[in-house]
Amino acid sequence: MMAAKADPVDILRTLIRCPSVTPEEGGALACLEALLGAAGFVVHRVKLTGPDTPDVENLYARFGTKGPNLCFAGHTDVVPPGDLTHWRFPPFEGAIHGGLIYGRGAVDMKGGVAAFIAAGLDFANAHGKAGDGALPGSISFLITGDEEGPAINGTEKLLRWLADRDERIDHCVLGEPSSRATLGDMVKIGRRGSLSGTLTVHGKQGHVGYPHLAENPIPGMVKLLAALTAEPLDSGTAHFQASNLEVVSVDVGNPAFNVIPAEARARFNIRFNDLWTPATLSAEIERRLNAAAGNSVRFSPAFEARSSDSFLTAPGEFVDLVTQSITATTGRTPELSTTGGTSDARFIKDYCPVVEFGLVGTTMHAVDESTPVDEVEALTRIYAGIIERYFAAFGR
Amino acid sequence: MMAAKADPVDILRTLIRCPSVTPEEGGALACLEALLGAAGFVVHRVKLTGPDTPDVENLYARFGTKGPNLCFAGHTDVVPPGDLTHWRFPPFEGAIHGGLIYGRGAVDMKGGVAAFIAAGLDFANAHGKAGDGALPGSISFLITGDEEGPAINGTEKLLRWLADRDERIDHCVLGEPSSRATLGDMVKIGRRGSLSGTLTVHGKQGHVGYPHLAENPIPGMVKLLAALTAEPLDSGTAHFQASNLEVVSVDVGNPAFNVIPAEARARFNIRFNDLWTPATLSAEIERRLNAAAGNSVRFSPAFEARSSDSFLTAPGEFVDLVTQSITATTGRTPELSTTGGTSDARFIKDYCPVVEFGLVGTTMHAVDESTPVDEVEALTRIYAGIIERYFAAFGR
Ligand SMILES: [Zn+2]
Ligand SMILES: [Zn+2]
Repeated sequence: MMAAKADPVDILRTLIRCPSVTPEEGGALACLEALLGAAGFVVHRVKLTGPDTPDVENLYARFGTKGPNLCFAGHTDVVPPGDLTHWRFPPFEGAIHGGLIYGRGAVDMKGGVAAFIAAGLDFANAHGKAGDGALPGSISFLITGDEEGPAINGTEKLLRWLADRDERIDHCVLGEPSSRATLGDMVKIGRRGSLSGTLTVHGKQGHVGYPHLAENPIPGMVKLLAALTAEPLDSGTAHFQASNLEVVSVDVGNPAFNVIPAEARARFNIRFNDLWTPATLSAEIERRLNAAAGNSVRFSPAFEARSSDSFLTAPGEFVDLVTQSITATTGRTPELSTTGGTSDARFIKDYCPVVEFGLVGTTMHAVDESTPVDEVEALTRIYAGIIERYFAAFGR
Repeated sequence: MMAAKADPVDILRTLIRCPSVTPEEGGALACLEALLGAAGFVVHRVKLTGPDTPDVENLYARFGTKGPNLCFAGHTDVVPPGDLTHWRFPPFEGAIHGGLIYGRGAVDMKGGVAAFIAAGLDFANAHGKAGDGALPGSISFLITGDEEGPAINGTEKLLRWLADRDERIDHCVLGEPSSRATLGDMVKIGRRGSLSGTLTVHGKQGHVGYPHLAENPIPGMVKLLAALTAEPLDSGTAHFQASNLEVVSVDVGNPAFNVIPAEARARFNIRFNDLWTPATLSAEIERRLNAAAGNSVRFSPAFEARSSDSFLTAPGEFVDLVTQSITATTGRTPELSTTGGTSDARFIKDYCPVVEFGLVGTTMHAVDESTPVDEVEALTRIYAGIIERYFAAFGR
């Protein structure tokens, strides 16, 4: 007798009931460990620790020992629920109402985790009896509890932990909520890079009644900020939007109306496409600042060490089988996108090709986060279809 | 036998030894009360109190009952000395070294107070025997302990206290350190007005990865600030510098590099001449902001209630006798100026013509504040010359 199909909705409701507000494990990984262990997965709970940031529980599980190894990646930590009284249903209950499952993490991304775990359990149950030699390869799960937090003791270190053990993953699907308006309308095949910096303009403190004895840094700051954004950085490339600079803060902190301040500081972030690297981009920013400053504005730019490069999983056999599986279930042809914020894909891409596909993200991080029951079920079918097509294309 | 001449250097050193750091009286007014009372002045110690600000001791003293009443105004409170180890001589000792008197308040403005008190004592001693009927008028001193503080329980309320008692002052010399480089090079005959405001630009918070879903207020702020200062407000008038706007702070307070903030705030102060009033000026600021904002920038301007108008004591008989007395002692013809920060003259001008004349201000509020002994003596002769010329011109 075949084992009963795994129910992703049950798994999702169980996960929602684990209050795994980052960096808390909340029972979510323990639940996955039990399910996967029972189905024959080799499960590793990996506690990662590091300076100045909380210890975090992570999990890696694999079914099969042969290559290729198709990995599904995700996180069970969630952002805080905020004011509980604003929720229609308690955020850690998993209530179903009107065809929707409510709860913190329903879309970001316990829903995606539940769907690929269910697809993985079904794969294991279907192939478990035949023995490892009969498998076309392996499937694995890489689950972190530090995606919504500082992301230091999470995916990045877990990938290094795998590499240190010669544990190889060949392709990866990250289950973040990539769909924009309807399930299947968008797959993320890369991301823009990110570079942050601080601009300080130096002046000389003084009294507003004697401006000639002081040097107000604010007009210089206004001039430099206007110059930074006067010309677009580029107009986009084949797979990428135009690069974009946002000034996210300007601060002087002068409480007095009669004092000209000594210094002004601005902070900016650039999301950039494959025309740039952090090095070429910071050089361009300095060029623009120098041109605008001339001899009249004294400034110092500083770039954050933690930048990330852009990346692209070029359309091809792997991306195709993902989109084909989406189309087979939803009838939609997903847009191949590189838009949006960064994700853990920025770490995974250093090890293997990675695409991101998951639920509709509209309610993520919001009150009444929720996902339709039938989309969780459809996503499970899509992930199952990806596994099937993957081994048909790459399996041995 | 004539009484001995009053010694302004002794008075100054006594005052410096009173640690009257605002709002402390420190014994300074008690010292003046004793000196003036002994010379026949009617002395009032006036404690002024008010909400949210410390109680402050003030003093008003008058010699004679007839008009006209020539008033010398000033303050005995001083700014804190700062780090005592940086001082060459202790700030509350009154050390004399190399012809200089050192101490907090030496120039701002215990030096001026000592000089006009000495001149006043000499006048009283010279005329005291003859009786009130023989006096050409009265001289008075209006001394506050709240000039360096919030200036709420000081000159402004003290003038109202006088008015409530039908105590009239006809002309006023404020002894602030008006001289710029050498004693007698500048008299202040008015001041620019001051108007402060806050500009808030409204946006919509969001993630830097999705700028189209957010509305960054900072580019709008940059645009508005550039527009505020693009054109000068005016090019000055007969007795006034050009009006000047300084943006003194810009603040967003966003600690995150990946968040587009909801709001940006700027604070500005305008020192303006007699072409403007606070009302016409705030209208012009709003006009500039509206023109620059168009339909694309949402902003709200707010002006501080505590603005001050510009004022001018027009050159004429009173200003002339002050400059003649300066020239008689120093050989210099002072520049008639309206530059610099506000002073208590902004309150006095509502009651009578006021000019400001005193020591060289270079070391005011600084470490090693000091004034040459001979300039304190010269200033005393100038004030005595003003008293003499005043009664020759206006006395009865
Ligand atoms: Zn997520
Ligand atoms: Zn002063």
